[in-house]
Amino acid sequence: MRTKYKPWAKPFIEEHNDKTISLEEFALLEYPIYLEIGCGKGQFIVDMAKKNKDISFIGVERNVTCCGFTLKKIVEEEINNAKLFVGDGEKVVEVIKDNSVKYLFLNFSDPWPKKRHNKRRLTHDNFLKQYKRIISDDGYIIFKTDNVELFEFSLDKFIESGLEIVSLTRDYQQLDEFDTMTEYETNFRNKGVKINRLIAKRK
Amino acid sequence: MRTKYKPWAKPFIEEHNDKTISLEEFALLEYPIYLEIGCGKGQFIVDMAKKNKDISFIGVERNVTCCGFTLKKIVEEEINNAKLFVGDGEKVVEVIKDNSVKYLFLNFSDPWPKKRHNKRRLTHDNFLKQYKRIISDDGYIIFKTDNVELFEFSLDKFIESGLEIVSLTRDYQQLDEFDTMTEYETNFRNKGVKINRLIAKRK
Repeated sequence: MRTKYKPWAKPFIEEHNDKTISLEEFALLEYPIYLEIGCGKGQFIVDMAKKNKDISFIGVERNVTCCGFTLKKIVEEEINNAKLFVGDGEKVVEVIKDNSVKYLFLNFSDPWPKKRHNKRRLTHDNFLKQYKRIISDDGYIIFKTDNVELFEFSLDKFIESGLEIVSLTRDYQQLDEFDTMTEYETNFRNKGVKINRLIAKRK
Repeated sequence: MRTKYKPWAKPFIEEHNDKTISLEEFALLEYPIYLEIGCGKGQFIVDMAKKNKDISFIGVERNVTCCGFTLKKIVEEEINNAKLFVGDGEKVVEVIKDNSVKYLFLNFSDPWPKKRHNKRRLTHDNFLKQYKRIISDDGYIIFKTDNVELFEFSLDKFIESGLEIVSLTRDYQQLDEFDTMTEYETNFRNKGVKINRLIAKRK
């Protein structure tokens, strides 16, 4: 489900740069950070922000058109507790302070099915190494995907990396209280596709 | 929680050998087998049998006194759909036919904490190799324990063995419909000890 390029996205993002966050600002953030890497069109982050008004959420997305959609939601729905980083998750996780992320959400990340692209997966070793560093002792990584192959790969990587698997299900049905559905998840559930979910923390 | 030796157990078992199963009989069993290895004093198997009268359950236990307690429950509560094998789980899994076990339950198995005893753990490679052979394509291995170290060890072994982790939780709270609590589980829950549970199947 690739998002078609929209020429309005870039100028819209520039116009609303008070709702975006720079890499420099990211580097200054303190515990507790609530972060979604790969926020797509922003439904998850915006919904979470609406449901949890005392918490600030940050979405990270490198597709500019998707960023446009996320920002549109933030602006139009007058969300004051969600911001957006337009760019690579890889860069973000490099600058975030140690032990500062309370929740790291990975929702329906790009599966990068070709083997030579595996390094781009958001659950590849390179990412997990940084996640282990940036999540707090009481922090969680919450990963949802419809893609069984990506889920298997990720489970292996989480275990190899020495993270503790707190919970795992191949058929996530009822939503946890601190969760909401993304566009993908709603579509998949409607089609009867099973949602895989994994929660991990530091040992 | 070692069970104190009871001299009545052995003669009681001999007296009620119509409720026990031999290794030869085990080798003849066909799909679908519902099996608990390490059934202790039998609360799980007896309860499951009472709740699911159209299913036959088999408990395996090598501690004779524990077997006495299990058999006492079966006899006194007039359970007709549960039998007992008095002896080693190791021998049982060797003789069971391929693809014949629908549910294999491992409840609060002995953690064998000393490293030199790890091979005795019911989730050691030697056991998992047989479990993979004996469970059916639609079969499940359901493992519960309070022991975090045993759980970690077992998760690693399940993954190494190529079984698929279907679900995992470090804090199993609501009972699934097809489940019941063992003596241990009731005690642990009352004390606030978390129950770890893992469900696995063939890939």
